[in-house]
Amino acid sequence: MISVDEATRQVLATARALPPETVPLPLAVGRVLLEPLYADRDFPPFHRVAMDGIALAFKAVAAGQTAFPIAATQLAGMPPQPLLDEHAAVEIMTGAALPPGTDTVVRYEDLEFQEVNGRRVAALLVPPPAAGHNIHHQAADRQQGDLLLPAGTRLSPAEIAVAATIGAATLRVARPLRVAVVSTGDELVELEQIPLAHQIRRSNAYMVQAALQQAGAESDAFHFNDDQQALRQGLPPLLAAYDALVLSGGVSKGQADFLPAMLQELGVTQLFHEVHQRPGKPFWFGEKADGAVVFALPGNPVSTFVNFYQYVLPWLRRCQQPHGQPQKLTALLATDFSFAPRIAYFLPVRLETAPYGHLLAHPQAIGGSGDLASLLHCDGFLRLPPEPTEFKAGDAFPLVRFR
Amino acid sequence: MISVDEATRQVLATARALPPETVPLPLAVGRVLLEPLYADRDFPPFHRVAMDGIALAFKAVAAGQTAFPIAATQLAGMPPQPLLDEHAAVEIMTGAALPPGTDTVVRYEDLEFQEVNGRRVAALLVPPPAAGHNIHHQAADRQQGDLLLPAGTRLSPAEIAVAATIGAATLRVARPLRVAVVSTGDELVELEQIPLAHQIRRSNAYMVQAALQQAGAESDAFHFNDDQQALRQGLPPLLAAYDALVLSGGVSKGQADFLPAMLQELGVTQLFHEVHQRPGKPFWFGEKADGAVVFALPGNPVSTFVNFYQYVLPWLRRCQQPHGQPQKLTALLATDFSFAPRIAYFLPVRLETAPYGHLLAHPQAIGGSGDLASLLHCDGFLRLPPEPTEFKAGDAFPLVRFR
Repeated sequence: MISVDEATRQVLATARALPPETVPLPLAVGRVLLEPLYADRDFPPFHRVAMDGIALAFKAVAAGQTAFPIAATQLAGMPPQPLLDEHAAVEIMTGAALPPGTDTVVRYEDLEFQEVNGRRVAALLVPPPAAGHNIHHQAADRQQGDLLLPAGTRLSPAEIAVAATIGAATLRVARPLRVAVVSTGDELVELEQIPLAHQIRRSNAYMVQAALQQAGAESDAFHFNDDQQALRQGLPPLLAAYDALVLSGGVSKGQADFLPAMLQELGVTQLFHEVHQRPGKPFWFGEKADGAVVFALPGNPVSTFVNFYQYVLPWLRRCQQPHGQPQKLTALLATDFSFAPRIAYFLPVRLETAPYGHLLAHPQAIGGSGDLASLLHCDGFLRLPPEPTEFKAGDAFPLVRFR
Repeated sequence: MISVDEATRQVLATARALPPETVPLPLAVGRVLLEPLYADRDFPPFHRVAMDGIALAFKAVAAGQTAFPIAATQLAGMPPQPLLDEHAAVEIMTGAALPPGTDTVVRYEDLEFQEVNGRRVAALLVPPPAAGHNIHHQAADRQQGDLLLPAGTRLSPAEIAVAATIGAATLRVARPLRVAVVSTGDELVELEQIPLAHQIRRSNAYMVQAALQQAGAESDAFHFNDDQQALRQGLPPLLAAYDALVLSGGVSKGQADFLPAMLQELGVTQLFHEVHQRPGKPFWFGEKADGAVVFALPGNPVSTFVNFYQYVLPWLRRCQQPHGQPQKLTALLATDFSFAPRIAYFLPVRLETAPYGHLLAHPQAIGGSGDLASLLHCDGFLRLPPEPTEFKAGDAFPLVRFR
């Protein structure tokens, strides 16, 4: 039986890069860019006035001049109004292009305006200390042709704004992963049905689809009873059409747990079966050549949950960003905790943000891996190693966060 | 001029609860529930077998019996197969309902099967320690009628799974916020246009719309030149139709900055103008009776960004969850940092997750509030108070995170 680390390594090794698709800019948020974006102009593209006030020639200030008649007014968006008289000034607004003949901006807060012989005159209350004051100079941030965003960048609102600035109305991004979510089990009935006394409703598939949606993947749900014939016919089209299958149930030691054998019969190579962890030990993982990666998760809801967040989600992220660094979260155990079995344990925890910026993990009681409702009060799992068996408050462990 | 804390308090005080709408369960992830959900049955609804193995009557074990002939086999989803002979056992699978006449499950790992006189017999390798072993008892987690999810709960995949379990095919959730994103400024041209030398493309509106989309709000974008007549006609329908307007530009001291006066003329009550912060000081905030809340943000892109994440996003979250606790993030300054002006400073930072679960904030150089491209290398802003002016590595400050 392999360790959690080894299982994670083998899962991530099967990640495949996604092909590109072209989407309008507003729909690209959260997606991963598959083309580099370069600056089409300098950033800023002109000497940009950074404060409302007046633009003047500094040499007049250096020569002792303290009052400047206003020769013109220039709002943002107006073509620059050249200053022909170096002893005058252009009244000017933030965002405007610096007028030729000027090199310095004095903000309104440092000016007093007077009317002199019917002419508007600005008197300096605080003279500018040097030429270039209050100007955001052309190319100060980026030069035309500079790489702004390399391929592989995940697009947050900041990247969307930069792409808009260079006029990228559409972007080439990784297409969404397509996942088939397959539930098995004769005890499961549809949401709309009233279950018989010994039946329950399907819930894992809804959980997995919701989590996939949050991660930016597309999914379709399929249900099979524990019927080998139906699975033998139903699975091959899914293996061919989807990037991944996420199954829940049918991978343990029971008589209806024929999925591992059947998947191999259908050409899915087993990479491992069973991980040295609790809950979620019976996890089966395989890959079909030229077909889907198959996550066959145990069907107890907490087991499905742990394995989805420990294995499936990092795999999705790796497919989306093959060169991205997986996020490594850590939290501190808030209270002492004992766990006698020498097996990696995913401890359900409620998280608290402590005053110095770290996360405290409070262990939550749980009625076994079937206790779905206990997850309502949890935010994640603290991954405790097989050894030791006594864990101390304040010790740090990897965190698998789902909320 | 008011402080960041006071401005935040006044902004949050204008949050309004959102009316309900009914959506299919799979579309409800990320939304906020507006009805309480109760357990329709016990959790689990029956004594649920928790391991594959055999079900037997413990009193036979207590009497010294160590081998049990298999009287029946029961898979999950099959009606319970009563055990009539207390010296026999039912071979049984995880998820099945415990058969009448049995009270204990022994897992396969603790059994050895033999063929005796043509009958399948399970010999106990490890006798069960007590009655009730390996059974997830009916109502152990929740009882029928228990409140599972109160109104006001944000629906993560765990809540979606619980709602599926009780057959909630549709849910009443808060309808999305509707926001009009309004850009102003004669210097701005559309994405598809080639700007003239003194023009730039619209980018703030794309940033704001992307961030709104991530937060689950709907938005439409509108652009007005610095044309008072167009704004006087164009804004009233937006004030009537949307929950909020987010404007950028036109609120500073310049000659084209007539928005504050015009908004009041259009019936929007000013709650404050200017916050003691950098960047983003000229922020104007108001509310129209029976109409929209108006966030008029300064137009420099970094100022827009800071104010969106400090004010607009927490307001959205408060509207979605009026009784939710705002998330308080904190990070530690990674290096000493000086900032002489005695004004709250939103310091752009790159975040690093440190080994003990806390966030380290590395200050990033930025070319003023117009330097949009600098945000590509930042994950958020550390909010430094007006005093002192020297900040030490290791000190903790509130974090405004945008990535």
